[in-house]
Amino acid sequence: MPLRPHRPLPLATPAGVEVLTRILTQGPIPRVEIARRTGLSQAAVTKAVAPLIETGFVTDQAPVPAEDNQLGIGRPVSPLTVVRESVSLIGLKVTPTSLIGVTTDFTAGILTVRHQRLDDTTPERVVDQLADLSKELITSLKLGEVMAGPLVGIGVAVSGDVDAAHGVVRDSPFMGWRDVPVAELMGQRLRVPVVVTNDVRALTVAEHWFGVGVDADSFAVVTIGSGIGCGLYINGEVVSGAYGVSGELGHLPLAPGDLVCTCGRRGCVETVASSDAILARTRETTGRADLDLAGAIKLAHEGDEHAREAFDRAGEVIGAALAAMVNLVGPELVVIAGEGVAEYDLYEERLRRTFAEHAFGAAGDCRLMLRSHTFDDWARGAAATVIRSYVRGEPPLNR
Amino acid sequence: MPLRPHRPLPLATPAGVEVLTRILTQGPIPRVEIARRTGLSQAAVTKAVAPLIETGFVTDQAPVPAEDNQLGIGRPVSPLTVVRESVSLIGLKVTPTSLIGVTTDFTAGILTVRHQRLDDTTPERVVDQLADLSKELITSLKLGEVMAGPLVGIGVAVSGDVDAAHGVVRDSPFMGWRDVPVAELMGQRLRVPVVVTNDVRALTVAEHWFGVGVDADSFAVVTIGSGIGCGLYINGEVVSGAYGVSGELGHLPLAPGDLVCTCGRRGCVETVASSDAILARTRETTGRADLDLAGAIKLAHEGDEHAREAFDRAGEVIGAALAAMVNLVGPELVVIAGEGVAEYDLYEERLRRTFAEHAFGAAGDCRLMLRSHTFDDWARGAAATVIRSYVRGEPPLNR
Repeated sequence: MPLRPHRPLPLATPAGVEVLTRILTQGPIPRVEIARRTGLSQAAVTKAVAPLIETGFVTDQAPVPAEDNQLGIGRPVSPLTVVRESVSLIGLKVTPTSLIGVTTDFTAGILTVRHQRLDDTTPERVVDQLADLSKELITSLKLGEVMAGPLVGIGVAVSGDVDAAHGVVRDSPFMGWRDVPVAELMGQRLRVPVVVTNDVRALTVAEHWFGVGVDADSFAVVTIGSGIGCGLYINGEVVSGAYGVSGELGHLPLAPGDLVCTCGRRGCVETVASSDAILARTRETTGRADLDLAGAIKLAHEGDEHAREAFDRAGEVIGAALAAMVNLVGPELVVIAGEGVAEYDLYEERLRRTFAEHAFGAAGDCRLMLRSHTFDDWARGAAATVIRSYVRGEPPLNR
Repeated sequence: MPLRPHRPLPLATPAGVEVLTRILTQGPIPRVEIARRTGLSQAAVTKAVAPLIETGFVTDQAPVPAEDNQLGIGRPVSPLTVVRESVSLIGLKVTPTSLIGVTTDFTAGILTVRHQRLDDTTPERVVDQLADLSKELITSLKLGEVMAGPLVGIGVAVSGDVDAAHGVVRDSPFMGWRDVPVAELMGQRLRVPVVVTNDVRALTVAEHWFGVGVDADSFAVVTIGSGIGCGLYINGEVVSGAYGVSGELGHLPLAPGDLVCTCGRRGCVETVASSDAILARTRETTGRADLDLAGAIKLAHEGDEHAREAFDRAGEVIGAALAAMVNLVGPELVVIAGEGVAEYDLYEERLRRTFAEHAFGAAGDCRLMLRSHTFDDWARGAAATVIRSYVRGEPPLNR
């Protein structure tokens, strides 16, 4: 399918946005059920759906099972679904050592994946490479490797304090970036709308629209690994923070005050619980300065008490941080994700014990759920963020 | 005005609830502005408003300024307001030593206030006294001391883990209550719908509908005093917690782990920052076991270094707790309330310093605002909670 420019959605009212959102995240879903869940009249639902069907974003042409035809039962109530290949999206995740890019369909289903090594983290070089990666992904869509609709936008996920409204990375300690206008720099290189977002929030948007959020009234996504992050979904929306900051679980002051964080503050959770902190502690206690993270993990799995202690310390402070978060916002479910999940067995016992010690009353009833997780999921989260902006008509994807 | 039984609101649709909520919390407000803010059509707004005017809950009869008449400018656009005296409410706050009761109008404006000493905290005795206090307040309404409409419900605010859906206080350490079915016990004594709520959440509802929440997109109410509590308003709604628990700022594990809290956990904020903890610390460091809280406050104001240190410790851990909360949820505004506000000067310096040290990036931009505050405000919060349930048609006030 040829790549066409931005394809506007025929959504003129808030009701239309609400209806499409239900179809996208809860479909296949009959009109009557949309009416019930939204409180809209059936007529209003039908009116909102008509132009979406006409323009090919939504369909009620369910594949009719053969038996039904044979039995002559006639046309069943056809539930509505989105046409997955009606548009395509690009999601990019930036890490200090690599870029991950995916293309997805309208439901954030991954179509293609590309990884690139990053040798230089200066903003201009990274954006050059992001633009190149985007062009490569656009080509993959054009070549018809996959069934894909017109590209509507590119999402870029970066860790740290991101001003999504202006497309600026305000402060990313991992990247060493301050006030980098990523959207503007990308705009100089590509003629596609670009959305810039905090990476953990992007993951939370993906869970909200296309993951656990479809069934949970509230949840937290907690990522463990090189950083400790948290995305919150409460009262029907991902929490963004009035000043663009929220979910900074890695910077709660729960660790000893003599430890200084990469962010410059004292006693942050990450001073004990980030993978760098675990590695540093293991090097210190074993006296093996040459150890890398894989080596520290191996030692811990072999039962080395120094390495185990470093993971125990991390598990303890993460457990306390989880309890603090749960005591404050009381989510139904906590999804634990991030690259550290691969070694979750090393954290788990101490984490669960400390969590149970500090969770207050019924707040402790929330389920802790592990999510095995790859770097591609971060990039998919960036694409999901673009889908959300597109459906809602938010800048730079407003109709 | 005679006291009539429950008076149903003529609200058949979610749009009607939304429209009345806007008039109640943002009025006086013209129909066209309601349409703009809600995304409803003007016709839908007019349709929802008509029965509310007809039944006397809402009016557009603005007092016409005399000049306008003289100048013959004609009828201005009349903004809609609720009829304050169309209904009345009772709000009750339970403390271990006293009961506070208020009657309010439809906008949570306080009409009458009664305080009663509480000598016995056993649930049956307290509920007896709550029922007596309610009858006294009902009589005050009947006697026509104030302009008051029919009573629609009674709200009871209690500290701790409250299951509002079932009207049960699950765990209130201050009261020494476990699984007390307050709504049911009240129902055996009075024939009025009863809503039971956590006290800090009630205060947050009052701020949301009739206070700072009218202008802030997100805020936290933090109460300091005999307990440390927190109510959160995020994404258009007060945070209730999936399991009924949220905002337990007093039980974040930010204090030294050797201190045991009244809740039985270790290292809770309240072990250092509650007024009891401050008093205990001052007694310990001064060696004056006879000191009461007023005495400790006096000592601190006189510059006694031991008493000052106890308040400094409290300010430090409250500041860290505020930073933790702000880093997680990023509210626009933090309202500091509670009886401890009277001595805020004793906490302030250390509190602000610690907050600034641990607030992450732009999250620290949120304003900290003091709210002078009486026990009557807690009771008013309980009444505001009833108003919200009444407008939304929630149990036990559903239409």
